[in-house]
This record gives sequence, C-alpha cells and structure tokens, in this order.
Amino acid sequence: MRRAVAALHAELTRYGLVAWTAGNVSGRVRRPEASGDLVVIKPSGVSYDELTPESMVVCDLYGRVLDGGLAPSSDVAAHCHIYREMPQVGGVVHTHSPYASAWAARGEAIPCVLTAMADEFGGPIPVGPFALIGGDEIGRGVVATLRDSRSPAVLMRNHGVFSIGATPRDAVKAAVMCEDVARTVHIARQLGTPVPIAAEHIDQLYDRYQNVYGQR
Amino acid sequence: MRRAVAALHAELTRYGLVAWTAGNVSGRVRRPEASGDLVVIKPSGVSYDELTPESMVVCDLYGRVLDGGLAPSSDVAAHCHIYREMPQVGGVVHTHSPYASAWAARGEAIPCVLTAMADEFGGPIPVGPFALIGGDEIGRGVVATLRDSRSPAVLMRNHGVFSIGATPRDAVKAAVMCEDVARTVHIARQLGTPVPIAAEHIDQLYDRYQNVYGQR
Amino acid sequence: MRRAVAALHAELTRYGLVAWTAGNVSGRVRRPEASGDLVVIKPSGVSYDELTPESMVVCDLYGRVLDGGLAPSSDVAAHCHIYREMPQVGGVVHTHSPYASAWAARGEAIPCVLTAMADEFGGPIPVGPFALIGGDEIGRGVVATLRDSRSPAVLMRNHGVFSIGATPRDAVKAAVMCEDVARTVHIARQLGTPVPIAAEHIDQLYDRYQNVYGQR
Amino acid sequence: MRRAVAALHAELTRYGLVAWTAGNVSGRVRRPEASGDLVVIKPSGVSYDELTPESMVVCDLYGRVLDGGLAPSSDVAAHCHIYREMPQVGGVVHTHSPYASAWAARGEAIPCVLTAMADEFGGPIPVGPFALIGGDEIGRGVVATLRDSRSPAVLMRNHGVFSIGATPRDAVKAAVMCEDVARTVHIARQLGTPVPIAAEHIDQLYDRYQNVYGQR
Repeated sequence: MRRAVAALHAELTRYGLVAWTAGNVSGRVRRPEASGDLVVIKPSGVSYDELTPESMVVCDLYGRVLDGGLAPSSDVAAHCHIYREMPQVGGVVHTHSPYASAWAARGEAIPCVLTAMADEFGGPIPVGPFALIGGDEIGRGVVATLRDSRSPAVLMRNHGVFSIGATPRDAVKAAVMCEDVARTVHIARQLGTPVPIAAEHIDQLYDRYQNVYGQR
Repeated sequence: MRRAVAALHAELTRYGLVAWTAGNVSGRVRRPEASGDLVVIKPSGVSYDELTPESMVVCDLYGRVLDGGLAPSSDVAAHCHIYREMPQVGGVVHTHSPYASAWAARGEAIPCVLTAMADEFGGPIPVGPFALIGGDEIGRGVVATLRDSRSPAVLMRNHGVFSIGATPRDAVKAAVMCEDVARTVHIARQLGTPVPIAAEHIDQLYDRYQNVYGQR
Repeated sequence: MRRAVAALHAELTRYGLVAWTAGNVSGRVRRPEASGDLVVIKPSGVSYDELTPESMVVCDLYGRVLDGGLAPSSDVAAHCHIYREMPQVGGVVHTHSPYASAWAARGEAIPCVLTAMADEFGGPIPVGPFALIGGDEIGRGVVATLRDSRSPAVLMRNHGVFSIGATPRDAVKAAVMCEDVARTVHIARQLGTPVPIAAEHIDQLYDRYQNVYGQR
Repeated sequence: MRRAVAALHAELTRYGLVAWTAGNVSGRVRRPEASGDLVVIKPSGVSYDELTPESMVVCDLYGRVLDGGLAPSSDVAAHCHIYREMPQVGGVVHTHSPYASAWAARGEAIPCVLTAMADEFGGPIPVGPFALIGGDEIGRGVVATLRDSRSPAVLMRNHGVFSIGATPRDAVKAAVMCEDVARTVHIARQLGTPVPIAAEHIDQLYDRYQNVYGQR
C-alpha cells in the first residue's frame, strides 16, 4: 500500500492536477475490526520528486501517526473522516486542479453534458460547502455531499477537489477525469451553451460503464 | 499491424488527446475476400503505459475476438461498423480531446477559417448525432456524417472525435490536427469573429495539400 | 548557493513560467556586516539548458560583479534593491508567467477567492507600478508594494511577477503558486463571479498555513 | 548549418508551436556573390522525431534542390523569397502556433502591452495578407509587412506566423516569443482591456533590449 500510494502521486503531476507540494493521495489498509483500519498518506509539504514508499505516513482512522518520521498531510483529518464514515471507500485524493477549482471558486456544479462524464460520474459533479482546513469540517462536507450523489468527486467551495474510490487508483482516476471534464465543459461554455443529455441516457451510459467497461 | 497500432497510441498521449484509459486506435488488416479483413484494436480500460503489440486485440469485422486474452475497446462496434461500410478506410481513431469535445458538447461544427484546416479537412469539421455506446449506433452516425464530407474527422455530439484514414497513422494525424484546429478556432472566436476563407481558396488549399505536400 | 540557485531555475521551466531566456532567480549569501552580503544570480540571456553552478554570477548588493565571466541578469538592479531594502529577504524570483502577466497587463490585482491563495498570499496579489528596466525603478516599485502586503509576490504593471522569500526556494514557490492561482482565478472569472472568502477566514487559513503546514 | 537547423526544430516542439509535421526552420549559408547563397530547410511532411542533419534539404535562393534526397518544405518558396528580398535575414521560421494563429484568423495585430513585447518586437506584431501557399505570394506578403515594422514576426491572415532573424536561432526566438506574447495578451483581453504602454517607453525598452541585454 505504501508503494501504491507513493507511485500514484506521479499521476497527479503527469496530469497537471497539482503545483509544488499541494495535493495528496491516501489508501485504506483493511484489518480485522478489533485492530481498526490503517491509512497510508502523503507527508505534509514534501515535494513530489522526493516521495518514496518509506516516506509515506501510516495513521489510524483518527489521524494518529503509527509509523513514519514525518508529519502527515495537513488534510489527514478530512481523509480519515471519509474513511470512518464511508466504509466502502478504499482511497481518497485531494487536488487543487485548475479547471475544477475554478468551478469550485464560483460554487457551481459541473453539468453532465459529456458522455465521458455520464460514464464516470453518473450526473453533475456536485459542490460541497466552504470549510476551514484542519479539523473534521472538510471531511463532513465531503461525506454529506457525496452520500447523495453517484459522483465519486466533489468540488469543495473556494478550495478544490476531493475524490473517492474503492481503491486509491480508482480515486486518482476520478480526480483525473474530474479535471478533464471540468476543462472540456468550461471550454464548451465559453462560446455558448452545451446541449443537455437526457437523464435516461445518462443512466444508460453510467450503468454500462460501471458494469461492462474494462477487463473483467 | 499490432506494433503500429500499439505505438500510435503514444501520439494520443503526446498531444494530450486522451486522459487515463479513454481513446483508442485501430487498424485494418486486409485479407482475401473469402477470409474477411481483421481489425487490430486497443484492449478496453488498459492504461497507455502498459500497451504492447501483444496486448492489442484482433477481431473480425463484427468485433468477435480472434486473438488476444483481453476484451477489446468498448468502442469496437463503432470501429467495425466504419470498416464494414467504408472499404477505403484502413485506420480509425477515437478520442475525447478537450477542445474538439467542447465543440461537440455544443453540437457545433468547426468553421474552416485556417489554411491548415483547409489543407487537412477541406472545409468545416462536421457534427454527428448523439448516440449511445455499445451497438452500431455510433458507427452509423460516423459513417452517415463522413460520407458527405471531405473531412476525415467528425465531432460526435456530447461525446468526442472519430477520425478515419487510409492507414492508422493517417487517422491519428487527423485526430491530432482536429484538436489543433479546434483549439485555434476556439481561441480566435473568444475575442471576435474569424475572417472567412473563400470556398475557392479552401478548394485550392485542399487540392494542393492532398496532392503535393510531403514526400512522393 | 550557486548550486541551489542554478538548480531552482529548472522549476521555472517545469511549471511553464518562462520562455526562452526570460526570468531569473537569485539568492542572498549573508556575511558579516563589514563585508556586506553577496547576491548569486542568473547570467543575462543564457538559455536554461546551459545554466550551471559555475555560470551563476556573484555580485555585491549594488550589482557589481565580483565573480563570474558573464554579465548578470539585466534585472540585477531590481534584485539588489530588494535585498538592500528588505533584510529579511533571502531569495528573489522574476518571471513573465502568462496568467499572472495577463493580470499585470490589465493592472488588476488577483482577488483572494481560493483557500490555497489565502494560505500562501494571505490576501490578494497586489499590482506594482509601471517601471522601466535597468535602474532602481523596478526594485523601488516592488518594495513599495510588498511592504504593505502579506503577499510574497507582486504583479508589476505591463510586465510580470517579482516574488520574494526567506530563501530562493521559498521565492520560487511563491512564483509557482502565483501563476497557479492567477490561472485558476482567471478561469473562474471567465464564466462568472467567484464567491468571496470572508476576511476572517483568510486570516485563519494564512495563520495555519504559515505555522502548521509542512514538516517542523 | 544542417546541424543547427535540424536541432532548432526541437525548440518548436518544446514550446508547443507545431503539431504533427507542420512548421519549419531554415537558415542561409552565405557565399561569395558569384556562387549565390544557399538555404538549408526542413524536408516536407517528415515528423520532428526523424529530423537529422542529413535529412535537411539544401536549395539555392530559388528553391531548387542542390543536395538531399527529399523534397523541401512546401513553404520553401516563401523562405527563399524572404532571403532574396531581405539580405540581412539569416534565418526564417514558420509555425501555426495556436494563440498567434488565432490572432491571425481574426486578422488582428497583437497590441504592444507587455514590456517583453516592447523588448523583442518594438511595437505591435503586424498582420500580413491572406495568400495561397506554393508560389511567391506568401513571401511577398511577409516582406511587404515586415519591411515597415521593427517586429521580426508577422501574422499571416488565416494562416500562422513567419519570423525572421540574423540567424536561424534568432528567428526561432522570435517565433517562441511571438506565441508567448500572443497568449498573454489574449488572456489579458479575455477579462478586460490591457493598459497601453506609452510609445516613448516602448522605444526605450526596445533600444535597451536590442543593445544591452544578454552577453556582449
């Protein structure tokens, strides 16, 4: 899990989702209920070039460091809140990717006007509340927003993106696709109004993509 | 053909036409009429870094897998429909490249206001219908639109680009140029109205580029 | 310091902040008061690929070359003025990064509508006066603007960005984040009005980021 | 000169000025008047990855191939016309770089609202006429436009950029800076009106940059 989480950070830089040391990926290590699950997460303020499996920080579900000499990401409380409240989530990603964060700065959901967006998000990408960093506030806003949505990504107002997935890789994919559709829909809107997609077509696209796409 | 098709996928990432595992290239292997042609295509949901000649999937013209342990691209039915209906086509490419997909989201053809666009497309890049993925619907829309056009690329509404060529390399070139002109015309339109190019000049540019450009 | 300053120029190209030979980084070498501090700075008009620790130019605080066979950056007078007037500054960066320079061309400060901007800049990124290159005029404009601001970056009108920090690395970080937020806020503004962040929240975010973020 | 011209094409791809095989660089080899100068230019339709010193084509000033098994760039007539009419020119570059070509599509000169633009171009970047490719028409339009301008670059209407310089490297620099300022001024204009720079300041910036910048 240390190797996987460390390596996935390279996708954030490859797709231009992060600048300098902003952004982070975490993964859940499932354990028997008595022990409690673990969270593997990026250390705070360390540059992407220097990330190694060893430098990843291991916490419990309350953000207490169990292993690693470095302080965890300053977003660790948000990640942990999500893991505690959403047992199906195995990976969480946070970025300030530019187009998605621009929608977030306006507090505006991204409308579902692309088949690729119906595939991955099953509808619009919703906006979560403004929240200060550090405590549970961000995590609560993420969970409250994503619970009522098929979308694995949320635009936190004036802030950026949180995405979730069954695995850290799925959460990274959602973060990459979120920026991709945020950009395309932005460009489309600059010169007019995108054509809506009928709700039933969104459902059909979503169902197919979640159940047929890829290797089985 | 496996080697060529696998390698051409690197052009999609190099030019930023694809995110994550979206997008695909295929090529036709011509065979005597009794045997029926073959199609070599990207496997579904496999990341671009992992594509090898061996991982390419070989199908017949109806998308039935003849060789390869992986499932073919979920767009295989569209590719096959094009190959069956347009015998001159030897390569097909599909992308969700951002600027071209933004025109597609508005359902708006790209007007021919650049000499490079006259060269490669011979006029506007047309819009095809909205179509659900999986069956023949997309392929029918692509063929119906491209049959009446000099353009080797079509913007499928709310979806993305399909491009064709005599070879897979030609189809990739058309996909690259489609995004390039989609972007430049978008930028031009953001601050005003591009100057039209006279129809006779478009014809002259197209004729010259198709017949004189490059090495003979 | 030669090694550090030479290496940091690679961050300017990595983040697309500079074209051709424009842009420069410098660092202060602190010495006993009697000797006077030194400034290590990029040579003028040398391409980024050719920069080495040895090619860096060493000046006194008045821009007089003490070591190095090359002429210093044509912005050396501005850097030196900043070091003379702001003793806490240990690094200075200058770029023409595109989004920030676009705000500078309009003479418009970047409003603080992103939490990442509150973190790093503690408020809007201010605009400094138009000034001709070569003498003290630019340096005076930078110092006059930054003295009254928590921001470590200033948009010099019709020109570009100057950023400062306790170290050259901190100044480079401010230049990178300046372009990042200049871009996101620009994109947000293209389709509407970003939601303001309350002044007290900006203060809380700034205080936390300056005092808690990263490794201690 | 073959080595220099072949290598400079890498700057066109590095700065995103070209897509696929579009764009070209040439250089003049000066010879005694009796022999006539030579032109070294990119071969037509060859991909940037495959360019070598040996694959460059050598022509006389009328585009007749003297050495090389490949056909020269289809823009060779324009390059040669410039070399014949402007004896001070030692290098010519042609691109369809996106932001500059967007200004060209609207037939609109780029106003000089950035100090970096005053430095390199000494004023606005002018627009040349619409012209068909192949004969002297483009070359005549380039020469007619640049003769009355301090700018080393011209936006050919509905087409793209031609830039000139004392050397091929200078012409490549002008092409890179042309796209850089085309982009920044475009972005500035998207959200308002850039502040003009006084004509006398443009003159002062231009004079200084042409005479003091860089290594002497």
